[in-house]
Amino acid sequence: MPVKLTAPQASSLLPVKGVKLGFTEASVRKPNRKDVLVMTLAEGSRVAGVFTKNRFCAAPVILCKDFLAQKSGIRALLVNTGCANAGTGDDGLSRAQQSCDALAALLNIQANQVLPFSTGVILEPLPVDKVIAGLPAAIANLQEDNWLNAAEAIMTTDIVAKGTSRRIQLCGKTVTITGISKGSGMIHPNMATMLGYIVTDAAVSQAALENVIQYAVNKSFNCITVDGDTSTNDSLVLMATNQAGNPEITEHSADFIKLRDALTDVAVELAQAIVRDGEGATKFMTVSVEGGKSVDECRKVGYAIAHSPLIKTAFFASDPNLGRILAAIGYAGVEDLDVNTLRLYLGDVLVAEKGGRAASYLEEQGVAIMKESDILVRVVLNRGAESVKIWTCDFSYDYVKINADYRS
Amino acid sequence: MPVKLTAPQASSLLPVKGVKLGFTEASVRKPNRKDVLVMTLAEGSRVAGVFTKNRFCAAPVILCKDFLAQKSGIRALLVNTGCANAGTGDDGLSRAQQSCDALAALLNIQANQVLPFSTGVILEPLPVDKVIAGLPAAIANLQEDNWLNAAEAIMTTDIVAKGTSRRIQLCGKTVTITGISKGSGMIHPNMATMLGYIVTDAAVSQAALENVIQYAVNKSFNCITVDGDTSTNDSLVLMATNQAGNPEITEHSADFIKLRDALTDVAVELAQAIVRDGEGATKFMTVSVEGGKSVDECRKVGYAIAHSPLIKTAFFASDPNLGRILAAIGYAGVEDLDVNTLRLYLGDVLVAEKGGRAASYLEEQGVAIMKESDILVRVVLNRGAESVKIWTCDFSYDYVKINADYRS
Repeated sequence: MPVKLTAPQASSLLPVKGVKLGFTEASVRKPNRKDVLVMTLAEGSRVAGVFTKNRFCAAPVILCKDFLAQKSGIRALLVNTGCANAGTGDDGLSRAQQSCDALAALLNIQANQVLPFSTGVILEPLPVDKVIAGLPAAIANLQEDNWLNAAEAIMTTDIVAKGTSRRIQLCGKTVTITGISKGSGMIHPNMATMLGYIVTDAAVSQAALENVIQYAVNKSFNCITVDGDTSTNDSLVLMATNQAGNPEITEHSADFIKLRDALTDVAVELAQAIVRDGEGATKFMTVSVEGGKSVDECRKVGYAIAHSPLIKTAFFASDPNLGRILAAIGYAGVEDLDVNTLRLYLGDVLVAEKGGRAASYLEEQGVAIMKESDILVRVVLNRGAESVKIWTCDFSYDYVKINADYRS
Repeated sequence: MPVKLTAPQASSLLPVKGVKLGFTEASVRKPNRKDVLVMTLAEGSRVAGVFTKNRFCAAPVILCKDFLAQKSGIRALLVNTGCANAGTGDDGLSRAQQSCDALAALLNIQANQVLPFSTGVILEPLPVDKVIAGLPAAIANLQEDNWLNAAEAIMTTDIVAKGTSRRIQLCGKTVTITGISKGSGMIHPNMATMLGYIVTDAAVSQAALENVIQYAVNKSFNCITVDGDTSTNDSLVLMATNQAGNPEITEHSADFIKLRDALTDVAVELAQAIVRDGEGATKFMTVSVEGGKSVDECRKVGYAIAHSPLIKTAFFASDPNLGRILAAIGYAGVEDLDVNTLRLYLGDVLVAEKGGRAASYLEEQGVAIMKESDILVRVVLNRGAESVKIWTCDFSYDYVKINADYRS
């Protein structure tokens, strides 16, 4: 079960002027589930994206990067679940292109104004005929208030739909931000098998939008891990529809930071929701690494802890097996780390210092904290001023079950 | 259950002249199990060791490195299970030293001629009084033919004892090699929660012994992974007792390669046994990466596959979910990898090429291979002449169960 995470109310996902969403059940892999999403954007919208660094990036990812580089003026997004269209070679590219061609024809736009996304099983051909056959129905129900349906239409092994909204004031105008995401396995920085779509109706310059997406992804989706696997299809798209009536926000605007932080806040919530819905998760762990010489070394320590199956199974068992955390810190790859000067906390309890267990630590303190569903692991390296936070979940029987059964 | 691995017969583990082994049940952590091993070496024996690179290396590892550097002439080894004496700070060092002092006094040697080893739970104080109290009993049963008991005495979560022997001819003399190992979780290169002891009665120079241990470890213990965790206590010790009557083998001897390869062969068998007995293992996987530009990039690809929980759970399910393997190759970190020129084989079946599924591949071929308990995953990068083999096992319910329950 997801860790302190429930699906949003339909009414809590606020419509964003200039965005409409339509979905259908196209039976891409299985019947009777929402599996195709169409999103349309008002003319003049600006779009930025970040994508997986996997060398086997999927066909739709290749097209997305290409179309964004062409600065064609993106007007629609097309998402299917059930098939990732990855590891599919030239044929996969052709099928992704066909889906864009078909949607473009129906919407009377150019094919390179459609960004395609796929998620699901790798190495199988995209049943593009099914996707195309579903487009008229998806277009027929395009609406501004379809966000919850949209969040449901992009789910794969997700248990709950993920979405959130914010309202802020920019230069006296009310600006809305709504985002949705999916993903619960193959989650790793750079990035997850995850899709994220965040839209605001604010007017934002392209440069500012690119700046914000890099900032936001480094604070959110690049700080989560479920199983250390980096997907072929990860995509985060940030869109601004220019409908709120505010003066265009640039990187030099007084309100730039305000908008950036609000968008980042949405990205963090969506990223954390993916971990809370991590495959088989029963605990949500925040690994905070502080006092590092560099962000890089903090990330090494954080991910060594967050990736360790030994630690993740101990958390599943609510066992304060802190030695496994020390071991992970030790093998994180920080060559000159002095294990005698760092401190390890569980919650706010000091559990290790001077290379060993803290004299003040009582096992029952660890046991009490381990019973919680949200747990903070805090490592203070005491050698610098940098810090990072990594979010992850535990490793349970159900993780194995879900991933052993996924294709069947 | 271990994958095609059974404990050796007592008679198959050959005595090695100059080595005696004694054990006892010292109740270090639990009663009624062999948990202390004493090994004595004839005067004039040569000893080389390689140890964990974990920054939180355990107290006994620190002493081992120190004593070996002192060239004190090692005469005994002392191993306890039940407690790793790691993450224990200065107190841990003191306790490890006390155990060496006690054994040295009983054997009438110097404390720095005793190498100590511990394996078990991290971050708890070594009950050194129990270890010391058990020493007289262990010494009382020191025998040359105690190898199977010795292999059993160093087990922790291991299901079966691990040991093997070889006999070779060097310059007309019969030389014996016997080795034992333990470990089944926290297994990762550089090195595993694993202990390995290999002894030969050959006369070998110190330089040749150091050369061989580096060679052998890189071909064996540094090529295995169960869960990606690198332990605080890993140690491999190679010993030569100079009792076989052969002329001393140096790096320039005609028979150097013969001895090196026989010792390496023992190391490979012991290392593979650890994977076959991997926690919860039901399959043994050989990941062969060939045609790389460098050994390093081959290792990156091999370990990306061998560490992936998604791949390991798919193997547990006997599911030829090959897309997960392609995804792992893609995120292995080989920056300029061309996914269109590599080939992926399962056993001898070509499953992927040109960035996608091979046209000739039939799902039933993959299904048939996945039913085997020993499976070869072969990646041909087609960009160079280097290759590596990595050995790992699958990821099952029982892995979670074992590691969630380990301390209880």
